[in-house]
Amino acid sequence: MISLVRKCVKEMNAYVPGEQPSDPAVVKLNTNENPYPPSPAVMRALKGIAPDMLRRYPDPDCKDLRAAIAKLHGCKAEQVFVGNGSDEILALASRAFVEDDGLLAYFDPSYSLYPVLARIRDVKTFAVGLNNDFSWPARPWRLPAKTGLFYMTNPNAPTGMLYPKKDVLSFCRKFRRVVIIDEAYADFARENDMDLALKLKNTLVLRTLSKAYSLAGLRVGYAVGPKELIAALFKVKDSYNVDRAAQCLALAAINDQAHMRANARRVKATRERLANALRNMDFEAPPSETNFIWARPGRLTAKSLFLKLRRKNILVRYFGAGLTREYLRISIGTDDQINRLLKTISEITD
Amino acid sequence: MISLVRKCVKEMNAYVPGEQPSDPAVVKLNTNENPYPPSPAVMRALKGIAPDMLRRYPDPDCKDLRAAIAKLHGCKAEQVFVGNGSDEILALASRAFVEDDGLLAYFDPSYSLYPVLARIRDVKTFAVGLNNDFSWPARPWRLPAKTGLFYMTNPNAPTGMLYPKKDVLSFCRKFRRVVIIDEAYADFARENDMDLALKLKNTLVLRTLSKAYSLAGLRVGYAVGPKELIAALFKVKDSYNVDRAAQCLALAAINDQAHMRANARRVKATRERLANALRNMDFEAPPSETNFIWARPGRLTAKSLFLKLRRKNILVRYFGAGLTREYLRISIGTDDQINRLLKTISEITD
Repeated sequence: MISLVRKCVKEMNAYVPGEQPSDPAVVKLNTNENPYPPSPAVMRALKGIAPDMLRRYPDPDCKDLRAAIAKLHGCKAEQVFVGNGSDEILALASRAFVEDDGLLAYFDPSYSLYPVLARIRDVKTFAVGLNNDFSWPARPWRLPAKTGLFYMTNPNAPTGMLYPKKDVLSFCRKFRRVVIIDEAYADFARENDMDLALKLKNTLVLRTLSKAYSLAGLRVGYAVGPKELIAALFKVKDSYNVDRAAQCLALAAINDQAHMRANARRVKATRERLANALRNMDFEAPPSETNFIWARPGRLTAKSLFLKLRRKNILVRYFGAGLTREYLRISIGTDDQINRLLKTISEITD
Repeated sequence: MISLVRKCVKEMNAYVPGEQPSDPAVVKLNTNENPYPPSPAVMRALKGIAPDMLRRYPDPDCKDLRAAIAKLHGCKAEQVFVGNGSDEILALASRAFVEDDGLLAYFDPSYSLYPVLARIRDVKTFAVGLNNDFSWPARPWRLPAKTGLFYMTNPNAPTGMLYPKKDVLSFCRKFRRVVIIDEAYADFARENDMDLALKLKNTLVLRTLSKAYSLAGLRVGYAVGPKELIAALFKVKDSYNVDRAAQCLALAAINDQAHMRANARRVKATRERLANALRNMDFEAPPSETNFIWARPGRLTAKSLFLKLRRKNILVRYFGAGLTREYLRISIGTDDQINRLLKTISEITD
């Protein structure tokens, strides 16, 4: 009997996002949301949405929003693409830059969505293993000839570590196909690679409004890079991929950099405090350049601690495979949430 | 030199949506938007969106919205999929139900997005020509063996005509692969094919909130059908494909059926008045079951009338190819807008 569903889809497992519990009692430190509210300008923009704006189709080209993003990064609007979250842009890139007999490559461990995107495209993958301490490996640009696209998360998730810019630059120069540097966490890092997207022919940088701008609910991400690659993304996107409310609220958020930066500063201060407190409780925690901490407990297993925290209504993220099974990824919450986490860990491990 | 962009993407032309002018002076009758505002319940839901709802990721499964849609159609939530507009669902279906060496089929003329979706998937297309009067052709289920998916718009666009249910049913029974009945305009029609999606193993019905619910700006569409096909769509979607505001506002819209039906009645009344007035001015206009009129001018060419109306700040839609080049597609506006259209046509053609 013929299957109605495409073979590769039938055989694949879907990506499993972090839990989104509706119980407000849960301390939710599992999906790297920002604990602070978005800019008041975003809420004002929301109140200003008139029925007529909902009734009519949105601008398919996101012109106003792209102009604001271009101004922010000192480039032209034709170098900017806006997506329904940066996840959409990652998926579009797999369709725009990889042939049916091509490969998709990425570091391991990294964002666990990448292999799922390859399975949906029904193309092979090539995972470049990081060193055991999750640092940049030797000669990662040695990839199979048909590799069309490399997804590089920088700072990396789930490790929170930043790759040195000279290594990233040399990768982009030596790998001749498209590189996407997914900078979801760049606003929490010491430096970023936006300059590479503005000078190299093969490099796109992705940003999201989900983390530093506190707008995960809105689904807005963007890519910056060479206009030829941006034009290819436009060709394969859905006509009206970003709704009108999202365009309007994202514009307000982008135009309030001060609010975003102030929130990022608060998150970074809490992050340093959490990292130090965890190290004092025998965790190993590499320096984080993101809004989460990647931590290996010293007194019990990561899995056991994950489950015990869960029972106490504190959700963190546990990836139970390969090198990552010894670690927990803990999103930076408010100071109160982090105090509760630390107190609970201390009770569990003492 | 190796191209960075996938060959099929390099060679394709993007879908061109109807113009979205920002000038409020333009009478916009080109993209089948609803001239009346969405339900007041939608605007109340909008005002109720708190910063915390934007800060956190949306429900990846759209559980509340799917439950409401399931209730509306008398099925289970597992038979419902929600997309970022029904355009997203059409694109997802091309990835879930068509193999790389498969074909995508549809009627010609029909929604001009379908061949673009096939080009993005890099699969062949098979267009089944309608009769010259745009009616249902003989034995349309005789399709190449590798056809994985048939897109059927019913009522059809751009013709506005409804296919008889017995023909649609017999098609779905004889074509053994997946059929998507795109019912964007069903709320303006005498009958619909939702019952087929609820009883056949291979048939999905698509609905949108863009037309009858006056929410084109929001990007919400849904599919109803067998749970195996719905599950395949879930596997290939982006994790958080429908943002939180869209889920929340769509739920309010779905729960106010009375408002939607009242608006649809007003649109249908204006539609009949416009059709009769056009026929009195020597247009040929088949009976419409949608929120637009498909009309062939008798006194000058469609293209010439399109351009003359445009100069008078009235936008209608003109598809300059094949059978459709003799027609204009005119969206139903408010009574005032339609009066202005009729007056302008009368001045142009007299």
